[in-house]
Amino acid sequence: MYYIGIDIGGTNLKAGLVNERYEITATKKTPLQFESMEQMGEILARMAIELSEENGVPRDQVASVGMGFPGPVDDKQGVVIKTVNIPIRSMPVAEMFHRHWDVPVRLGNDADCAALGEFYHYENKDIESLILVTLGTGIGTGIILNGKIHTGVNGCAGEGGHTVIVYGGEPCSCGRRGCWERYASANALIRQTIAAMDSHKDSAMWGLTGGDLSRVDGRTAFEAMRKGDAAARAVVDQYLEYLACGLANVVNIFQPEVIALGGGVSHERDEDLLAPLQSMVLEMCFGREADRHTKLVKAKLGNDAGIIGAALLGIQ
Amino acid sequence: MYYIGIDIGGTNLKAGLVNERYEITATKKTPLQFESMEQMGEILARMAIELSEENGVPRDQVASVGMGFPGPVDDKQGVVIKTVNIPIRSMPVAEMFHRHWDVPVRLGNDADCAALGEFYHYENKDIESLILVTLGTGIGTGIILNGKIHTGVNGCAGEGGHTVIVYGGEPCSCGRRGCWERYASANALIRQTIAAMDSHKDSAMWGLTGGDLSRVDGRTAFEAMRKGDAAARAVVDQYLEYLACGLANVVNIFQPEVIALGGGVSHERDEDLLAPLQSMVLEMCFGREADRHTKLVKAKLGNDAGIIGAALLGIQ
Repeated sequence: MYYIGIDIGGTNLKAGLVNERYEITATKKTPLQFESMEQMGEILARMAIELSEENGVPRDQVASVGMGFPGPVDDKQGVVIKTVNIPIRSMPVAEMFHRHWDVPVRLGNDADCAALGEFYHYENKDIESLILVTLGTGIGTGIILNGKIHTGVNGCAGEGGHTVIVYGGEPCSCGRRGCWERYASANALIRQTIAAMDSHKDSAMWGLTGGDLSRVDGRTAFEAMRKGDAAARAVVDQYLEYLACGLANVVNIFQPEVIALGGGVSHERDEDLLAPLQSMVLEMCFGREADRHTKLVKAKLGNDAGIIGAALLGIQ
Repeated sequence: MYYIGIDIGGTNLKAGLVNERYEITATKKTPLQFESMEQMGEILARMAIELSEENGVPRDQVASVGMGFPGPVDDKQGVVIKTVNIPIRSMPVAEMFHRHWDVPVRLGNDADCAALGEFYHYENKDIESLILVTLGTGIGTGIILNGKIHTGVNGCAGEGGHTVIVYGGEPCSCGRRGCWERYASANALIRQTIAAMDSHKDSAMWGLTGGDLSRVDGRTAFEAMRKGDAAARAVVDQYLEYLACGLANVVNIFQPEVIALGGGVSHERDEDLLAPLQSMVLEMCFGREADRHTKLVKAKLGNDAGIIGAALLGIQ
C-alpha cells in the first residue's frame, strides 16, 4: 500500500507518494492558485489522482491521503479551521475531496505533520513521545505523545513558541509580550545579530555580510564566532541561553523521550549548538539525576518532513 | 468492586475505600513512621488489609490498591524513584506490598493522582484532557491526556511550576531563576503581600494581621482589597497577571479541555479570582477565536483528591 501526503504551503502544493517504509517514492509540485474553496478541494483531489496515476499506482493501492495545512484543523470533522497566509476559513476539505475520490482523507497542522514524520523516522522507532521544535520565523512545537499528535480541544495546541519566558518582554505578533519565539527563533537570532553589529562596528560579522545588514542570517553570528569574534560569541551565548530556557520548560512539562530540533539554525555544527544545548538543558531540568532523560537531537527529514508527516496521518 | 487509595504524605498516611462511583466510603489515617523501606511496604499493606476488613469488604472485592507518593514513580516496575521529605529512594513498593497481599498495586505521583481524581469527577465526565494546577507552597501541574496521566520518560513530567516565565528572575529551589511558582504559588502571594505591607505601613493589610507579618496568608491581600485597600488591590492585580501568564502558557501548549485550579488560593471568591483569570487567559491565548476553548474551573475534591486519585490509578 501507499500513502499520499500533501504539504499545503503559502506558495506551493507539494504532494508525495509514501511507501510502507515511510519513504517518498515520487513527488509532484504545483503553485497554489485557486478562486474558491470549492476549487481548492478539486485541485487537491486532482493532484493526488495524478500523482498515483503518473506513477503507476492503482487507486486501490492508496490507503489514504493526508494533508498538512498551516493552521488549526479538525481532523475528525474533516475541516480546516483557518490558515495563515491562505484565505481558507472553515473549509470542509474532506467532503470536497470526496466528490472526486472516495479515499480516506486525514488532515493535520503542518508543524504537527513534520513532528509525526520525525517520530516515525526516529532511529529504531521504539519511542512513544517526540516534540519537534522548529526554529524559523517563529518557533513551532509539534507534539507527539503515545504515538499520536496532540492537537488539543480546538486544534490549536503545540504553540510552545508563544509561551512567555520574559515576563513583560518584547511584544509578540500573538498579542503577548516576551514569547519564547521573540528570543530564540531564527528571526530572533537575526535581530540579535544586527543589534550586536550596530554596537560593535569592528566585529567580524560586518566582513561576513559585506557591510550589508540585509545579508545577516542565522549563520552570521556562528561563523564570526568561529573566527574568534567576541561580539559574535556573546550573541551566540545569549541566544543559546534563551533557546535552552524554553527547551528546559518543555522538558519540565513533558519529559518527552525525544526533542528534535529543526529549522535552518539546527544545521549549525554540533559542537556550537547541539552539544552546549544538551548540557545546558540537562542542568536546568527536573529529573536530571534520573536514569532516563529527554534526548535532544537534530531533526532528520528537513523539507520532506511535511509530505511524509502528512502521509503518515493515514497510518496513525 | 472497591478500589483502595493511599495518599502518602510527609506526616501521615491516609487510606480510603473508593466505590465504583468514585466515592470514598471509608477512610483510615496513621502517622508516617518507619525504620526501613521494607517496613514501609509492610505498613502500607497492613493499612490496606485493615481498611477492607474493618469495613466488611472481603479482600476479593478489592480490585486494586493505588498509592500516591510525593515524587516520581515508575508504575510499570512498581518502584518509587524518590520522594520529597521522606527518605525513600528506588523503593520496590509493589514487590514489598505483594509479600503481604497479592492484589494489583498501582503507583502514582500525588499531584498526578489529584489530577486524576478531578478528571473522573468533572461534571458529566465527557472530557479527555484536564490539567490540575495546584497553588500551594509551589505550583503543581498534574496532566491528564486521553484519560491517562502523562508521566514522561522518567516519571518527572508535569513540573509546570518550574517553567521560567521571568527570564533571569528570582532564584528557585530547582536551581533555575524566574520559575512560575516563584511568582504565582500561594507562597509567592504571601511574599508579595509582605513586601507590599513593608512599603505601605498604612495598608488595611496590617489591621487584618494584627500587625504580625507571620500571620499573613494567601487570603490577606484579597480580604484587604475587598475593604477597598489600594495596596492590596495592586498585590492581587499583579498576582493574577503572573498566574494568568503561566496559565496561558499551559493553554498554548496543550489546549486542554479543562484546567482546574486547586490549592487554598483557589477558594477565593469567583469574582475576585476565577472570573478575572478566565478573561485574562482567554485574551492571551492562541485559538481565542476558535469555537472551543479550555475551560478554567475550580478543583472540586480538595483534600480527598489524593485518596480518590490514588484509588483511580487502578481503574485507568
